[in-house]
Amino acid sequence: MNLFEIENPKFLKKLNVNQLESLAQDVREFLIQSCAETGGHIGANLGVVELSIALHKHFNSPEDKFIFDVGHQAYIHKILTGRIDQFDTLRQYKGLCGFPKLRESEHDVWEAGHSSTSLSAAMGIAKARDIKEENYQVVPIIGDGALTGGMALEALNHIGSDKTNMTIILNDNEMSIAPNVGALHNMLGRIRTNTNYNRFKYDIEDAIQKMPQVGSRLRDIADRIKDSLKYLVVEGVFFEELGIKYIGPVDGHDFEDLEQAMQSAKDCKGPVVVHVITKKGKGYHPAEDDKLGTWHGLGPYKIETGEVLGGKPTVSWSEFMSNSVLDKAKDDKSIVAITPAMPVGSKLTKFQNELPDQFFDVGIAEQHAVTMAAGLATNGMKPYLAIYSTFLQRGYDQLLHDVDRQNLNVFIGIDRSGLVGADGETHQGVFDISFISPLPNTTLMMPRDEFEAEQMINLALNHDGPIALRYPRGNIKGVDMSVPREPFNIGKWETLQEGSDVNIISFGPTVSLAEKAANALEQEDIHAGVVNARFIKPLDEEYLHKVGQSGKPLVIVEESMLTGGLGSMIATFLGDNHYTNKIKRIGIDNEYIEHGDVNLLLEDIGITAENIKDQAVRLMGTKHEKSTY
Amino acid sequence: MNLFEIENPKFLKKLNVNQLESLAQDVREFLIQSCAETGGHIGANLGVVELSIALHKHFNSPEDKFIFDVGHQAYIHKILTGRIDQFDTLRQYKGLCGFPKLRESEHDVWEAGHSSTSLSAAMGIAKARDIKEENYQVVPIIGDGALTGGMALEALNHIGSDKTNMTIILNDNEMSIAPNVGALHNMLGRIRTNTNYNRFKYDIEDAIQKMPQVGSRLRDIADRIKDSLKYLVVEGVFFEELGIKYIGPVDGHDFEDLEQAMQSAKDCKGPVVVHVITKKGKGYHPAEDDKLGTWHGLGPYKIETGEVLGGKPTVSWSEFMSNSVLDKAKDDKSIVAITPAMPVGSKLTKFQNELPDQFFDVGIAEQHAVTMAAGLATNGMKPYLAIYSTFLQRGYDQLLHDVDRQNLNVFIGIDRSGLVGADGETHQGVFDISFISPLPNTTLMMPRDEFEAEQMINLALNHDGPIALRYPRGNIKGVDMSVPREPFNIGKWETLQEGSDVNIISFGPTVSLAEKAANALEQEDIHAGVVNARFIKPLDEEYLHKVGQSGKPLVIVEESMLTGGLGSMIATFLGDNHYTNKIKRIGIDNEYIEHGDVNLLLEDIGITAENIKDQAVRLMGTKHEKSTY
Repeated sequence: MNLFEIENPKFLKKLNVNQLESLAQDVREFLIQSCAETGGHIGANLGVVELSIALHKHFNSPEDKFIFDVGHQAYIHKILTGRIDQFDTLRQYKGLCGFPKLRESEHDVWEAGHSSTSLSAAMGIAKARDIKEENYQVVPIIGDGALTGGMALEALNHIGSDKTNMTIILNDNEMSIAPNVGALHNMLGRIRTNTNYNRFKYDIEDAIQKMPQVGSRLRDIADRIKDSLKYLVVEGVFFEELGIKYIGPVDGHDFEDLEQAMQSAKDCKGPVVVHVITKKGKGYHPAEDDKLGTWHGLGPYKIETGEVLGGKPTVSWSEFMSNSVLDKAKDDKSIVAITPAMPVGSKLTKFQNELPDQFFDVGIAEQHAVTMAAGLATNGMKPYLAIYSTFLQRGYDQLLHDVDRQNLNVFIGIDRSGLVGADGETHQGVFDISFISPLPNTTLMMPRDEFEAEQMINLALNHDGPIALRYPRGNIKGVDMSVPREPFNIGKWETLQEGSDVNIISFGPTVSLAEKAANALEQEDIHAGVVNARFIKPLDEEYLHKVGQSGKPLVIVEESMLTGGLGSMIATFLGDNHYTNKIKRIGIDNEYIEHGDVNLLLEDIGITAENIKDQAVRLMGTKHEKSTY
Repeated sequence: MNLFEIENPKFLKKLNVNQLESLAQDVREFLIQSCAETGGHIGANLGVVELSIALHKHFNSPEDKFIFDVGHQAYIHKILTGRIDQFDTLRQYKGLCGFPKLRESEHDVWEAGHSSTSLSAAMGIAKARDIKEENYQVVPIIGDGALTGGMALEALNHIGSDKTNMTIILNDNEMSIAPNVGALHNMLGRIRTNTNYNRFKYDIEDAIQKMPQVGSRLRDIADRIKDSLKYLVVEGVFFEELGIKYIGPVDGHDFEDLEQAMQSAKDCKGPVVVHVITKKGKGYHPAEDDKLGTWHGLGPYKIETGEVLGGKPTVSWSEFMSNSVLDKAKDDKSIVAITPAMPVGSKLTKFQNELPDQFFDVGIAEQHAVTMAAGLATNGMKPYLAIYSTFLQRGYDQLLHDVDRQNLNVFIGIDRSGLVGADGETHQGVFDISFISPLPNTTLMMPRDEFEAEQMINLALNHDGPIALRYPRGNIKGVDMSVPREPFNIGKWETLQEGSDVNIISFGPTVSLAEKAANALEQEDIHAGVVNARFIKPLDEEYLHKVGQSGKPLVIVEESMLTGGLGSMIATFLGDNHYTNKIKRIGIDNEYIEHGDVNLLLEDIGITAENIKDQAVRLMGTKHEKSTY
C-alpha cells in the first residue's frame, strides 16, 4: 500500500494477517530508506514494526493511551498516525521530533526522552481515568533495559499493589542501548530460553480454584501445592510476586501471537504485563547483527552495507576521555570506571575489554551508579563515572547527599555537556552547571580543548574531593599535544588575550567563538580580552577582583542555562564586592531548546562570534572611552 | 552491666544468650529513658536492639563494614561502639548526630539520612574490597520501606547479577515511616504470615542436587520439578529470581535464630539476603502500639504514658497546607494528593481518610511520585504533591523532564523548606531554590504566613503550569485569617514597609527578621524598606527596576543556599540591567549545616535581625547620605 496515504490507524481494523505482514514489509523498507538519509534510532524501530502495527490494530488510539518509554521507538506509531510525510525532516531543525511530541499529534499523549518514566505516567493517566469514571485502555510500552531504571520498579511496586487496570507491553529485545546487564535481564533470559510457552496458565489456575475446598490445615497444604503447580507452569513469577499478571513470552514478529496475547490481556482485571520478544534491527542485517549497540541511534548510512556515512576517522570527546582515563587506570588499580548503560556512547568498551575487573556497566540505573561510585570512594578507590549531563539529573540527590556531602573522591566525566543536537530538548546538557554549582564540595570544570582536558584529568585523579569535568558531544579539536603548556591549579582561569576595552569570558568550545569575536572587534579598533573560565567552580576570584577593579565591561558566553550559570555567578560576585562593571550574559534564557543542528540552535540562542561582538560593542556604548595603552 | 563502660563491641564475643538478653534489656531501658529527654527515632531503634547486638557479636566491626540504610536506627550501634556518654546531646547543636557519622567513629563507614542508599554503597565498598583483594564482610542493613526506593532496586539488580559477596540484612518491621505500601510490602507480608519457617532449604537443595542426573529432555523436567520443590519449601522467590539467596524469615528478637541465620549467610557464596522480622517500638508499649508512624521520630516524651511533651495545641505548616488543599478537593474531584511515604509527616492522614479515592501514598518512591503527578496532570487532574524539600532532590529529573518540560499543572507543596533542625545536614531543605529556579516553566513561591499561603494555594490551583509552594517545618504563626488582604498576581512582591535608605528583601519566615531589623534601624534613624519576595520565580521585575533606579543598597536574606538563591538572582538582574546598587546577601555560604536547634543554626549563619541590621548599616557606609523625606 501507499504509506503516504495513511491519515490515522483506523484502516488497520480491516486488514487480515497477510495484509498486515505486507504492511510491515512496506514500513520496514520505508524506515531503512528514510533513516539512511536522515539517521535516527533505526534499530529500535525495526524491532517494533509488527508490535506497533498490532497495538494500533488491537487498541483504539487516541481514546486508548499509548505511552512509549524513552520514545525513540515511536517511528512506526508516527507513520500510522499520519506523519510519514515529515520523515525527511526527522530530528532536524524545526523538523519531526525523534520522540513522541504532544503538539505533533493527538495520538502522542506523553513525551519521553529519558528512560523508565512510562509506568509512572501510565499510573497517573490510569488513576485520572478511574477518578473521572472514564473507560479506555492505558498501555505503557517499556523495554527490558528501561525496566531496570529505579523509577520503573517504584512504579511496578505501586501498580501491583493498587491493581490499577493497565496493559504493560514489555518489549524485550535483549538490549537497551548496549547489551543489557543485571539480574532482571538474566531473569527475562531464563524465560526467553524456556521452550514451554505457557499461554494457558490462567485456565489451569481456574481449574485449581474449582477443586473442592478442604478444612484449615489441609487447605494450607492445598494452597501450597497450588502455588507450586503454578510455578511449574507459569513464567514471570517475578511480576506475579509483585501482583502483576504475566502473559508471555510472545513472539513480537508474529501478528497472530500478538493479537492473542493482547486479547488475553484485555480479559484480565488489574494490571497485566505482556512480555513480547522482539529483535532489534529486525529485517535489516547490518542492524540485526549489531551486538554492541552501535546501531542504537546514528547518522545517515549506506543502505547496501550499513556503512555509516560522513564518519571521518576523527576522535570523539567520549573516546578521548575514556582512553585517557584507561591509560592511567592501567598503572593504578584504584582507578575504576562506571557507566550507566553507556559503554558504547561514552566509548568505554576499550576500557571494559582491557580492564574488565576495573569496569562496571550498571545498566540504566543512574542513581545506583552515582552512589556506588561514592561507596567505592569510601573504600579507597578513585572511581571515574562517565555519565551524560542530561542523565546526571537522575542521580542528582545521590551526587548531593552521597558524593558531595561526604566529600568523596569521585571523578565525574559529564559527557554531552551543552547542546546535543538531534535528540533535542530532553537530552540537551544545559542544566548541570546550575544544579552542581550550589554543592559545597564539588569542583566543576570544562576544558577548551583536549590538551586542557588531559591536564584536567591529571588534576582530577590527584584531587581530594568530588570533581567533575564537562565535555561536549562531537569530536576533539585535534590540537598538537606535543606543544607544552603552563600547568595550572584548581580555580585558575586562563587569559588567552589581554584587552583594554572589554573582556569576553567563556569556557569549553565557545571559547573559540570568544576569540573570533575578539579578532573581529580588533578590526574595529576595540581591544577585547578573552578569558577561558575553565573552572566554573570555584571562580577565579583573583581575576574577578582585577577585572572588577578595572571596571571594564564583561561579556559572558555559556552554552548552558543562564539561571544559575557562570554569568550569574560572576554577576553575583561583582555585586557582592560592589564592583560596577557592565555585563552582558549570552546563553539559554529560560527556555527548552528543541532538536536540530547545533550550529542552527546556537544561532537562535545568539551564541555566535557575530553576536558576541555586537553585544560587546553595545555594552561599551557609542561614547565608550577607549584606553590608550 | 554498666553500658557506660562499653568502649567497643569486642566484649560481645564472650556473652551467652542469657547475657545477651540481659544486655538487650539494659539497652532498651537506656534508650527509652534517654530519648524521653532528647527525643529521637526511638521506635526504629527499639525494634533493632537484638539485631544490632547480634550483628556486632557475629561480625567484626570495623573490619567488617556495617552500612545502615537511612541511618536513624543506628543508636544501639553507637552505644556498642562507645558513644553512650554523648546520648544526652543526641541531635542537638554540636551534639551526637542522629545518623552514622564518619568523623564520630571508625565503626561508621557510610553516612546516610536519605533512604535506599545502602545497597549501592555496599556494592561500591564490596567491589573495592575485591579489587584490593581484601577479605571482610560487607553488611548493608536495610528496612522493608527503604527497599521500595528505586535506587535500592537498581542496586539489587546489579548485585544479583554480579554475584558480589555481601550479607544484606532486610529489617522488616512492616512499616518504614508510616505503614508501608506497595507490592513488595505485600510480598513480604505473604512470607511473614506463613507459619512454615524454612530454615533448611539449602539442605533440601543440596539433596536435590545430589539426585542422579538424567538425559536431556528428562533433565529439563527434573529441573522444573526441582524448581517447583524449591518453591514448595522456599520463601523469598522474589530475591531468588534476582539471583540473591534468601534466608528467612528470622525472628529478629531471638538471638539464637539470628546467630543461626547469620552463620548460614556466611556459608553462602555470593549475595544473600537475611530477612529479619522485627517489631518497631519493641518493649515500649506506646511505641509498639503505634499503627500510624507517629513514633517514627519525635521530641521528648513522658515515659509512663508516652505522651509527647511540649506539644502545644498549635497547627503545623504541614497540617495547614494539607487541610487547606483537602477543603478544595472536597468540591473538586480533579484535585488529588500524592505523598511519598509521608502521610503522617505531611499531615495528609485526614485527606487520606476523607477522600481515599483522591489520595495516593506511593511509598518511598519520590521519582515515581513526581512523574505520576505529571501523568495525572496530562489527563486533566490537578495533582498536589506534598514532598519534603530534601526528598524532592530525589525527583529532580522527573520534575525537570516530566513536569516542567511538559509544562504540566502540578502543584508541589515543598514541606520542610529551610532548616529542619535535629535531622541535620542530610535533611535541611536548602537546595530547592537553586535547583528549581533554572527550570523554565515552574513558578516558585514562599508565603510569610498562613494567610498568604491560603492566597497562594488558591493561585496555584487556578494556575496553568507547574507551581511550587515552599513551607517551613514547625507551626504556623496564628494570624487572624478574618482580616482581609490585597489579592495579588504571580510575580508580585509585597512592600511591607517603605524605606528611603536601604531595602531588606526576604521571603518566608525570615521576613519577620527583616521587619525586626528595620525597626531596630529606625531607632538609629535609618529608614529601611522591607520587601516580602513571596515569588522567588518569577522575580518582581517592576519592583527591581524601581529599586535599581533608586540606587539604594539592598540586603537580601534567605534561609537557603546562597549559590543559585534569590540573592544571586537579584544581583544578576541588577547586573544585567546595569544598576549599581550595593548588595549584601545573607544565607548559607557553600557549606552543609549540621543538626541542632534552628535558632542556634540561624545565629551561626548570620540569619538574625541583629546581623541584618549590622549588614545594612555596614552597606550604607559610615558616610551614607540620608534622604530627607
